[in-house]
Amino acid sequence: MADSRSLSHVDPEGRLRMVDVAGKDESEREAVAEGRVLLQRSTLDQIKAATLAKGDLLAAARIAGVMAAKRTHELIPLCHPLALTHVDLALRLSEQAPEGFGGAVEIRARVGCRGRTGVEMEALTAVSVAALTIYDMAKAVDRGMRITDIRLREKLGGRSGAIELP
Amino acid sequence: MADSRSLSHVDPEGRLRMVDVAGKDESEREAVAEGRVLLQRSTLDQIKAATLAKGDLLAAARIAGVMAAKRTHELIPLCHPLALTHVDLALRLSEQAPEGFGGAVEIRARVGCRGRTGVEMEALTAVSVAALTIYDMAKAVDRGMRITDIRLREKLGGRSGAIELP
Amino acid sequence: MADSRSLSHVDPEGRLRMVDVAGKDESEREAVAEGRVLLQRSTLDQIKAATLAKGDLLAAARIAGVMAAKRTHELIPLCHPLALTHVDLALRLSEQAPEGFGGAVEIRARVGCRGRTGVEMEALTAVSVAALTIYDMAKAVDRGMRITDIRLREKLGGRSGAIELP
Amino acid sequence: MADSRSLSHVDPEGRLRMVDVAGKDESEREAVAEGRVLLQRSTLDQIKAATLAKGDLLAAARIAGVMAAKRTHELIPLCHPLALTHVDLALRLSEQAPEGFGGAVEIRARVGCRGRTGVEMEALTAVSVAALTIYDMAKAVDRGMRITDIRLREKLGGRSGAIELP
Amino acid sequence: MADSRSLSHVDPEGRLRMVDVAGKDESEREAVAEGRVLLQRSTLDQIKAATLAKGDLLAAARIAGVMAAKRTHELIPLCHPLALTHVDLALRLSEQAPEGFGGAVEIRARVGCRGRTGVEMEALTAVSVAALTIYDMAKAVDRGMRITDIRLREKLGGRSGAIELP
Amino acid sequence: MADSRSLSHVDPEGRLRMVDVAGKDESEREAVAEGRVLLQRSTLDQIKAATLAKGDLLAAARIAGVMAAKRTHELIPLCHPLALTHVDLALRLSEQAPEGFGGAVEIRARVGCRGRTGVEMEALTAVSVAALTIYDMAKAVDRGMRITDIRLREKLGGRSGAIELP
Repeated sequence: MADSRSLSHVDPEGRLRMVDVAGKDESEREAVAEGRVLLQRSTLDQIKAATLAKGDLLAAARIAGVMAAKRTHELIPLCHPLALTHVDLALRLSEQAPEGFGGAVEIRARVGCRGRTGVEMEALTAVSVAALTIYDMAKAVDRGMRITDIRLREKLGGRSGAIELP
Repeated sequence: MADSRSLSHVDPEGRLRMVDVAGKDESEREAVAEGRVLLQRSTLDQIKAATLAKGDLLAAARIAGVMAAKRTHELIPLCHPLALTHVDLALRLSEQAPEGFGGAVEIRARVGCRGRTGVEMEALTAVSVAALTIYDMAKAVDRGMRITDIRLREKLGGRSGAIELP
Repeated sequence: MADSRSLSHVDPEGRLRMVDVAGKDESEREAVAEGRVLLQRSTLDQIKAATLAKGDLLAAARIAGVMAAKRTHELIPLCHPLALTHVDLALRLSEQAPEGFGGAVEIRARVGCRGRTGVEMEALTAVSVAALTIYDMAKAVDRGMRITDIRLREKLGGRSGAIELP
Repeated sequence: MADSRSLSHVDPEGRLRMVDVAGKDESEREAVAEGRVLLQRSTLDQIKAATLAKGDLLAAARIAGVMAAKRTHELIPLCHPLALTHVDLALRLSEQAPEGFGGAVEIRARVGCRGRTGVEMEALTAVSVAALTIYDMAKAVDRGMRITDIRLREKLGGRSGAIELP
Repeated sequence: MADSRSLSHVDPEGRLRMVDVAGKDESEREAVAEGRVLLQRSTLDQIKAATLAKGDLLAAARIAGVMAAKRTHELIPLCHPLALTHVDLALRLSEQAPEGFGGAVEIRARVGCRGRTGVEMEALTAVSVAALTIYDMAKAVDRGMRITDIRLREKLGGRSGAIELP
Repeated sequence: MADSRSLSHVDPEGRLRMVDVAGKDESEREAVAEGRVLLQRSTLDQIKAATLAKGDLLAAARIAGVMAAKRTHELIPLCHPLALTHVDLALRLSEQAPEGFGGAVEIRARVGCRGRTGVEMEALTAVSVAALTIYDMAKAVDRGMRITDIRLREKLGGRSGAIELP
């Protein structure tokens, strides 16, 4: 069945503009996004070892994610600037991975704001940049890494209320 | 077999610092990265229709990708600032997608520079931000989209010469 | 007759500071600005042809304008950061131009926010950067282009209510 | 006569990409751009008075112009990042202006770099942002201001050598 | 006596995240910070002379401070983005300085916002960047300069009300 | 004895412009800067405890310093953009402090580039922003902190060769 809703930021003639949110209510909003970096088992082991020695490596990814969330509207052309109230990233090293990989760094970001539009893009941007930061540090030892499964998991506030995604 | 090379930007004690490239030769370097946004068939159809009406939608993703490539060193904490010589993004609408999805926007970025370190991160960042831009425009009609399979495909220049990845 | 109002951001001793808007009411505000890039007829024709082939060229200017509007407070030293609610740019190719030119790209930007100060600077910045983007793409074929007539056309909200300018 | 050269950053199919400059020689390059802000005589007088009291007002425009020149590649989507070697802005208050105006702030920017592509866009961006900064400070006393005649005056270095424009 | 309050942005396990301010009341907030650049008497004299000739030098520091205040959340990883309502910097040339120095540039910044968290970091960032700007202009004549005594002086609004520091 | 060298970026009439470095040789350059945050003993103890639990806190300051070094030319109005080759920050918790304080976080930054001008400002900016980041995390438990003694320690390369400062 065709979806009757329409693309955001695209006017009836196909031209782009930042959609008008002036008429929307200001409300508390939150979004949770996830993603993961697939890598070799030996890479996972090096990340574990470096993390045990000093927490810098995962901290760098967490901090890069938080800082990127705040700059989402500078990166995504039609995103509204938003006054974020919180950003929180969790990273987990996992030995579960699809065939061809030996492990994964799993990333989960939770972002909140009080505003007129949602924070999905901020949460997804936080995950993406945290993943790129992991990639940057491990790229000398593992050229086949893959950033994958970046998706929205929860959305709270706004017209559609609370939504949980599979 | 364990990889004897080590993580970038991490000193022997696990502390982070931007790795020193002063001793490396300046050479022409290039990198190609890919990724895709998985979505519903109806979403793909709406993107096709909007693109036919006016090319703005894919142009926005291409431009966002180019601009993000130039800001990679602001986003990824330990990336070096690089004088990029070219950035080129290609987007393709495809009806091929894994189960649960009806199509994909496939993204390919080629980035070049003349410098002391490679441009993999710039190419991967371009793909990631182009994918997020597609997501942003389609998120009102398709909440289950997934950004996936972001990976390096080619690398040219520097000590390791030309590399092609599967 | 001398104007009794005074320059913004300049204190009685001539020193600059960002003017205090804490006491102003938050209200819906909007501004419309215009400007144009004058160019040769052959340049106009090349832009037309490229636009017909694929809409990227004007899309790039529109997107650059939207993104610049969001960064106005980073560019103009004493502008307040504002939570923009919408930004919309329209570009029109015109064969009307003053002597010495064969045509023009006419740019119109509409910007809105809900805040304590107006968005004139955001609309003017959007027009300026869209014009510079057109210039950048056409500069290899037309060295005599001129960016001109950048001005405010409408202003809505705030103490002065709705204003239309000639 | 039709110009056989083609638009920059636009490929044969009309798609945008940052043009490849890797093959160009690195050379010393310079560009001079100009523009002006037209305003009422009383506005000009207020700017003069504030400038005499303390030089901040014109200093702000000069500094905003210098800082914007450095960020040109962040604003204009397809501009290359360049290592600028100098930026210099001169502002002049003039009582000469077209009908309907009582004076002008004339702005001239000179920008240099050593690189693979010219600095016209940097000089034009410096002028534009300096003009917007003047506008921002005078907008409370003069709603009819106009930013106009922004154009390239000189270009030095690169394949085309030294060029002076009327 | 141990302080029972805890570090900001650090969760019970020592992991960083941007602290959640969604539950805090929006109120008017202000902060005043100070600092100084210690230098040789001859440097102070050169700054005085340049300032008398034209106010640009101190204006540059003031403007750099204002612009940095607006970008605090981009610089300090866990700072919230805030809609500043005013920023004001005052600089004073002083002949008082500790042993080994002949004078000082004293800097004072006042920053305000209406929001859910305080503006101490914005005021301290404004002072720091204004000090660095002074340093940059004087570094060719005085290699021993020192930026010192950067601290909070006043804090207004929020849960703790008005606070004055020694 | 009067110093015959003159202020940087200031022309003979006192007007500011970015000094021209096109004529300077490109060479390897390095700078080391230092500074410290003075605080209460209990604050120092909380930072120690959080650092033991997880290294995030000092990692955040290190990363903020590295990222700020890369953005120095955006913050300090007349600094040249530079292609940094390395940035390294070291932080040390110390119980030594002047009267009125119980300890200090000591910060040392080493920055390198290959370019036409030195990297003192980059090293000093890295130290300043790392110090502000420490302040931000400890400000809820210690309102009397002071950022102090920010100064250059070493300078390598360029016309003046190697310099060590007391």
